[in-house]
Amino acid sequence: METIVMAGKPVAEEAKSRITAKIELAKAQGRKITLAIVVVGDDAASHVYKKRLVKITESLGAEAMVYELAANVQQAEVEKLIEKLNDEDEITGILPMMPLPRHLNSDAIGTAITPSKDVDCLNPLNAGEVYLARSKWAPCTPRACMAILNYYGIEVEGKNVVVLGRSNVVGKPVALLLVQENATVTICHSRTKNLPEILKQADIIVAAVGIPSFVKPEMVKEGVVIVDVGINAVDGKFVGDVDAAVSAKAAAFTPVPGGVGVVSNMMVMDMLSRCL
Amino acid sequence: METIVMAGKPVAEEAKSRITAKIELAKAQGRKITLAIVVVGDDAASHVYKKRLVKITESLGAEAMVYELAANVQQAEVEKLIEKLNDEDEITGILPMMPLPRHLNSDAIGTAITPSKDVDCLNPLNAGEVYLARSKWAPCTPRACMAILNYYGIEVEGKNVVVLGRSNVVGKPVALLLVQENATVTICHSRTKNLPEILKQADIIVAAVGIPSFVKPEMVKEGVVIVDVGINAVDGKFVGDVDAAVSAKAAAFTPVPGGVGVVSNMMVMDMLSRCL
Repeated sequence: METIVMAGKPVAEEAKSRITAKIELAKAQGRKITLAIVVVGDDAASHVYKKRLVKITESLGAEAMVYELAANVQQAEVEKLIEKLNDEDEITGILPMMPLPRHLNSDAIGTAITPSKDVDCLNPLNAGEVYLARSKWAPCTPRACMAILNYYGIEVEGKNVVVLGRSNVVGKPVALLLVQENATVTICHSRTKNLPEILKQADIIVAAVGIPSFVKPEMVKEGVVIVDVGINAVDGKFVGDVDAAVSAKAAAFTPVPGGVGVVSNMMVMDMLSRCL
Repeated sequence: METIVMAGKPVAEEAKSRITAKIELAKAQGRKITLAIVVVGDDAASHVYKKRLVKITESLGAEAMVYELAANVQQAEVEKLIEKLNDEDEITGILPMMPLPRHLNSDAIGTAITPSKDVDCLNPLNAGEVYLARSKWAPCTPRACMAILNYYGIEVEGKNVVVLGRSNVVGKPVALLLVQENATVTICHSRTKNLPEILKQADIIVAAVGIPSFVKPEMVKEGVVIVDVGINAVDGKFVGDVDAAVSAKAAAFTPVPGGVGVVSNMMVMDMLSRCL
């Protein structure tokens, strides 16, 4: 059996045409679609991500407004900006670049975003809807994982899926989305004791631990499906959370770069179009 | 090794003295503590549960107000009552008895409860806080499971815990609470394919499927810990989701009745005291 390289590009392209149509329709009805991107400080990755998002937003015929704040900005000032964006009719969606500088309370800033403009589900009300499975909203990266599996025809129902990582932005929401799609899901993390044994039984592994090449070939079974959320900078190159050598044993895997990240960016646009 | 029967009573008693002290203090400060119980229709179990809650509430020195609505009540009328209770200063917490009659939208009724009076986390904002691990709030039954494990000194960190069931009131929240306490958690459900194999590896099983005696002795390993959330009426008796014969293989188990249910009722009181 040939290994499927689950590239993000075709998944993103398919989503793009659907989202573009939605944006075109809204524009034809005289509406403006604008993504407000809030960047605080000088975090290099945030600025790279910001630039990429501006480009994608514009390529879909929508607008991006970038709000840059100094690294030492006060909490109240960030929240004031969010509230202003909440109130402005011309702003469709709001996305603060994470992580924010340490002195800021990210939770409170996420909570300040009005639920209807909250493109990455940072408001607990939206998070609650995801958790209660009442909403098609979900943070962008988990939605990207699901979109990739769906695009490449990977059935998740009844499969043993191991999610590595328990963050609020990836691990927990992707686990819940998978359970909702009838997968049997095991959530593992830094305190998991018998990880290689657990990974060995996985039909599908979603890796989101942020440790370069953490999952090794001897930990997985032949024919496993790998969704690698990790993007770790190592010696000026990007590597995933899954060792590249694992691909030789996998039935399907997402490359890094060019896998989940590409789709995740497009999911921001998808969420923006849902804010309309 | 002797099997530990994890009776609910001492767990509830311990919680009770703590909660009573809190209520006494509030009363000494001139505050009233009142639980509003909303019962719709004639569901026998709901009326039994209502009576039990009234008794417990009063035994703790707080007050219970019961609001009974006809089985054919309209959605708007239930929501109007909830809003009235939200606004009344003398109402501390609000608990509608579930399940509600089918023609009613339970989700919308849960959402109508103001977050600060929402004793069973039915409002998505509270659910979101649980999911994001930002809150000590959680629905009462999952909290009861955690309280029992804690009381009987069952360490969950690094343990393989299998949660049977993925409901919003038990399965999903208990899985999240366990992950938060560093357990490795597998969420299983009706579509799980290799359940006996998965159960066999569990150090701890939390059963919440609502199927009498579903977990059989041959499915579990020697020394397993059983938390049985099921309360199923069979031939006029209550049986759990775990076959009684499993106790012979277990290191510890919760009896049914007299296990999780007893603690769960007390957790309603705990949540009420947190609404103060």
